[in-house]
Amino acid sequence: MLTIQRLDIADARVMIAGARAKAEEIGVPMCIAITDEGGNLVAFERMDGGKVTSSTIAVDKAFTAAGAKKATHDYGEVSQPGKPAYGIASAIGGRLMVVGGGLPVEVDGAVVGGIGVSSGTPAQDRDVAEAGIAAFMATL
Amino acid sequence: MLTIQRLDIADARVMIAGARAKAEEIGVPMCIAITDEGGNLVAFERMDGGKVTSSTIAVDKAFTAAGAKKATHDYGEVSQPGKPAYGIASAIGGRLMVVGGGLPVEVDGAVVGGIGVSSGTPAQDRDVAEAGIAAFMATL
Amino acid sequence: MLTIQRLDIADARVMIAGARAKAEEIGVPMCIAITDEGGNLVAFERMDGGKVTSSTIAVDKAFTAAGAKKATHDYGEVSQPGKPAYGIASAIGGRLMVVGGGLPVEVDGAVVGGIGVSSGTPAQDRDVAEAGIAAFMATL
Amino acid sequence: MLTIQRLDIADARVMIAGARAKAEEIGVPMCIAITDEGGNLVAFERMDGGKVTSSTIAVDKAFTAAGAKKATHDYGEVSQPGKPAYGIASAIGGRLMVVGGGLPVEVDGAVVGGIGVSSGTPAQDRDVAEAGIAAFMATL
Repeated sequence: MLTIQRLDIADARVMIAGARAKAEEIGVPMCIAITDEGGNLVAFERMDGGKVTSSTIAVDKAFTAAGAKKATHDYGEVSQPGKPAYGIASAIGGRLMVVGGGLPVEVDGAVVGGIGVSSGTPAQDRDVAEAGIAAFMATL
Repeated sequence: MLTIQRLDIADARVMIAGARAKAEEIGVPMCIAITDEGGNLVAFERMDGGKVTSSTIAVDKAFTAAGAKKATHDYGEVSQPGKPAYGIASAIGGRLMVVGGGLPVEVDGAVVGGIGVSSGTPAQDRDVAEAGIAAFMATL
Repeated sequence: MLTIQRLDIADARVMIAGARAKAEEIGVPMCIAITDEGGNLVAFERMDGGKVTSSTIAVDKAFTAAGAKKATHDYGEVSQPGKPAYGIASAIGGRLMVVGGGLPVEVDGAVVGGIGVSSGTPAQDRDVAEAGIAAFMATL
Repeated sequence: MLTIQRLDIADARVMIAGARAKAEEIGVPMCIAITDEGGNLVAFERMDGGKVTSSTIAVDKAFTAAGAKKATHDYGEVSQPGKPAYGIASAIGGRLMVVGGGLPVEVDGAVVGGIGVSSGTPAQDRDVAEAGIAAFMATL
């Protein structure tokens, strides 16, 4: 059998709070999703003014980052036309996200969860996701 | 145009906290989802030990209750074999939930959101959903 | 709680009538969809001769524009290969439309709904959608 | 953070071998799926002659049993007409299986995975799933 470390709900709340603080700082209301390392949803918040379409997108960014152990913006690069992963964006019924804003959460070299952020530009989404991870790392 | 009242993220947090307190009291870790009155997700928590399958089910119970302005257990009754709504359980790609645990949130006679709870028995899920609504009502 | 303004069915009829008049003027039978600000369908018409496939596309264009508070042709630009939102076209099970013809409906700076048009070229679809919005704005 | 025990691929192979031996004994070629405790697929085999439709059904039985920590035949009982969970069979896009043949795999009181079997009668599927678990338990 395998022994796995994974985020718990307290960790997820810390990450959402950290991400939300950054979103408020840059003035962009966000959808923020946290999954465990298996890609299953642990916690989610749509800030007032966050986009309705971004609910699903944030969840799927977190799912992709956790499940694939890869930042979604890294998929963005390798899935460009002519690149090796071209076309992967529509995989898993469209859940495989290649737009920035999804990051794996790593502790001691192992993925323990994922965070997905959506409603701003992909660069803003990524900044806010990084703030969520930083808040969590500060608790370790 | 229409003027609509809807839950905000602060209301959603109050509901999740109220539901969680009840879940802890009865000793059943739950998935708890809050949607706005349009059925779009506002907030979600899977308590440590909540069922993975219940993530989707909780969200869909809240979606059904808010969107249809009806408790999911009421659908359970009218969708029994021989009853008028028989078969509706598989509507909307299976998102229409007829199992107890989804409740519309009503203020002044208007639906402002929905709460969906899953992981326990349907009766436990419904009790926890009611506790979430009660916590919110106490703030009005 | 939040107080939201949203299109009512009378507004939706005005928008469809405005869009239809433009579609007749340019001689292209269209599918025309109106959603509220949560992306849920309010009204729809497929003019005689409108494309069957465009029923879904028009609805999804309106859903995208309302839910993301963004014209679908703007997504078209930022989702080109090499651009930041590349790959977003397949998000939300493919419902996220990046082809022109979907517009958010804004009143006093807030999105109150969306219109989606499909059956012509993206440029024609967009012109017809704009005509629908103009007809609505004239009633305010 | 949480520390989780889960099946590894060696465990999954033992379970498939045990299930396959039982399937051969009763003369019914089966589809056999093993998931981890998060419901994600670890291993799968369709024996020569196993039903094509049973590929998905076996995977979904294992997903349901692991994710809900419950045997699928238990869902079968509580989801009968008039029972509390009536209608749950179509949840999660129809992935929630209430037909026998899906079992959670438990070690020291915690679910570490799931096994799903399909192609025979539900009773045969369940017998084969139990044989898979028994083979695994013998290795502990």
